[in-house]
Amino acid sequence: MDRPEAQTTDRKDHSMPEKPLIKTLRGEVLERPPFWFLRQAGRYLPEYRQLRQQQRDFLSFCYSPDMAIEATLQPLRRFAPDAAILFSDILVVVDALGRSVRFVEGEGPVVDPVRSSEDVASLRSSEGIHDRLGPVYQTVRGLRRELPETTALIGFAGAPWTVALYMVEGRGGTDGGTARAWGYVDVDGFGRLIHILTDATVAYLGQQIEHGAEVVQLFDSWAGVLSETQFRNWVVKPTTTIVRALNERYPDVPVIGYPRGAGAQYETYVAETRVNAVGLDSGVPLRWVASTLQAQCTVQGSLDNQALVAGGAAMDAEADQILDILGSGPLVFNLGHGILPHTPPEHVQQLADRVRAWRRTEGIA
Amino acid sequence: MDRPEAQTTDRKDHSMPEKPLIKTLRGEVLERPPFWFLRQAGRYLPEYRQLRQQQRDFLSFCYSPDMAIEATLQPLRRFAPDAAILFSDILVVVDALGRSVRFVEGEGPVVDPVRSSEDVASLRSSEGIHDRLGPVYQTVRGLRRELPETTALIGFAGAPWTVALYMVEGRGGTDGGTARAWGYVDVDGFGRLIHILTDATVAYLGQQIEHGAEVVQLFDSWAGVLSETQFRNWVVKPTTTIVRALNERYPDVPVIGYPRGAGAQYETYVAETRVNAVGLDSGVPLRWVASTLQAQCTVQGSLDNQALVAGGAAMDAEADQILDILGSGPLVFNLGHGILPHTPPEHVQQLADRVRAWRRTEGIA
Repeated sequence: MDRPEAQTTDRKDHSMPEKPLIKTLRGEVLERPPFWFLRQAGRYLPEYRQLRQQQRDFLSFCYSPDMAIEATLQPLRRFAPDAAILFSDILVVVDALGRSVRFVEGEGPVVDPVRSSEDVASLRSSEGIHDRLGPVYQTVRGLRRELPETTALIGFAGAPWTVALYMVEGRGGTDGGTARAWGYVDVDGFGRLIHILTDATVAYLGQQIEHGAEVVQLFDSWAGVLSETQFRNWVVKPTTTIVRALNERYPDVPVIGYPRGAGAQYETYVAETRVNAVGLDSGVPLRWVASTLQAQCTVQGSLDNQALVAGGAAMDAEADQILDILGSGPLVFNLGHGILPHTPPEHVQQLADRVRAWRRTEGIA
Repeated sequence: MDRPEAQTTDRKDHSMPEKPLIKTLRGEVLERPPFWFLRQAGRYLPEYRQLRQQQRDFLSFCYSPDMAIEATLQPLRRFAPDAAILFSDILVVVDALGRSVRFVEGEGPVVDPVRSSEDVASLRSSEGIHDRLGPVYQTVRGLRRELPETTALIGFAGAPWTVALYMVEGRGGTDGGTARAWGYVDVDGFGRLIHILTDATVAYLGQQIEHGAEVVQLFDSWAGVLSETQFRNWVVKPTTTIVRALNERYPDVPVIGYPRGAGAQYETYVAETRVNAVGLDSGVPLRWVASTLQAQCTVQGSLDNQALVAGGAAMDAEADQILDILGSGPLVFNLGHGILPHTPPEHVQQLADRVRAWRRTEGIA
């Protein structure tokens, strides 16, 4: 696969001490876990809502490096998490593959649906996506220069199944029924779509890394609707391909997989894909995570975003439970799902303070 | 809790040989597993759509014993499954508690939302529900007379959390965010709603049993959206109470729990609630089920309803996998989620034939 040359050498900087997030993703257990929050940038922040006034079209906003950089940095100024995550959307890849994507206010994304082998054949190849995605790579490069020196930069992409779901259904808010049925009726045809998305994801994340992303996360937000057979075909296999390709080329860049809703299949996912870390949704029982998943890799999660809406003692209790059960192993503290628009920013502050103040009881140097 | 006297003695009939479903729910392993299908009665059947012409209002249809009996019997004539399940809706209990429920075509149920302790206090007590639910009990009694002698009659109710979700949100299609937030902010207030629903569920299922239900199933269709803490509080605890109350009074009536989407929490659910059988969604990995859940109780499931839409060889392969992995232990073959309206009835026939023809390889008498 051809990739454009990176134009800078900001990918590695050996003079810097390693960042807490990176150390943890390599399996080290620090005095307190690093943290960041899913959708830490976004609508719950008044400064974000103000910024969006300058560009109401969401896709154009994502493709404006200045604005995307500013949106990424906003939560860092308030909460000083251990990581920034590129402000973008998983559907930019669909746009870059040549399929129309619109974001309709109050309704979410609308995609010109892909429903046939002809539709799949009409998609651009993965080498053709970079022109359109150039502004995202510029955002990554700009961010890498702006970040505090202990803050890690996370790039991301939607995982093939989750992106395919939006492409086939044409919108969110479904359980992917049309895509799932297609995957049973015509396993080869649907498999070609997954294959194209797998290639595109490797190319896209590769370029994010070339431009400065130090960690990448694969969002498989709709992994939970699949049967065991389809989970193996559409989640585990493509993710394994992506992780292997990225680890070969960029062995120093950890890959976090986040197969939301995978339930008991989290175990297979971790064992087979060889992700460096796994993102947990809020429904995964913590002691099972400690004994089954954390023995194999770093875990990230899993506070209920509704506990963050509630705040107060209930939220503290939920956070403490995660820290107490998973904090003695490699843990990146995070939510199980993104921050909701009506979340009070002071609750996020309270949570950041709580995690920052926590210490492992056994005490390490 | 006062319960009206049963007016017949059709609950037990010791002259009959035990039915395959009941034997399996007690842990016996038969030559081939019994089967039935979630939503085996309903819109995918032309005869059902025709019957509904006589009564367009869905709640009135559920409260018409003649029509509900006919709807229940329709799939038996076509597919001869090993069980009939009462045709009704989980929200009749909400209606019986005095809260307005409407079924809007193309939109699903709309409930006058319960959002405060005052709303909870205004609900009828569980002793007050039976007048309104009388027609459901008549349906059960009528069905028991109509069924073929090897066909078991399953009664059902929504589990407290799932019913509470609809009551609080006022509609389906949500992830229960309002209910979950309430459960964190005011654990006692929301807990009172769960308590009322727990009592009502015991009373309601008790009366179904008194009128002839031989098995009862608790549908916790939205168990999968809860964090570990809330799953314990709103799913495991109330279900444990319901199972214990029913098992004490009706030790010969198996209780099937169906906490859809529970993921790795299925294990805790089975261990703590002591359900006699557990309903599996389609995302649960089968070998994990065999080693973890089936060792503790009978399992029921878990064919993907989209595989049933697809039909053909893909469906057969999915069905065979379930039979081959779980068929050597106590298994009730079923779907992981209800039959979808656009499912071709011939696919259901193909599936019924497939299961009926299957035999355990080791061969038992």
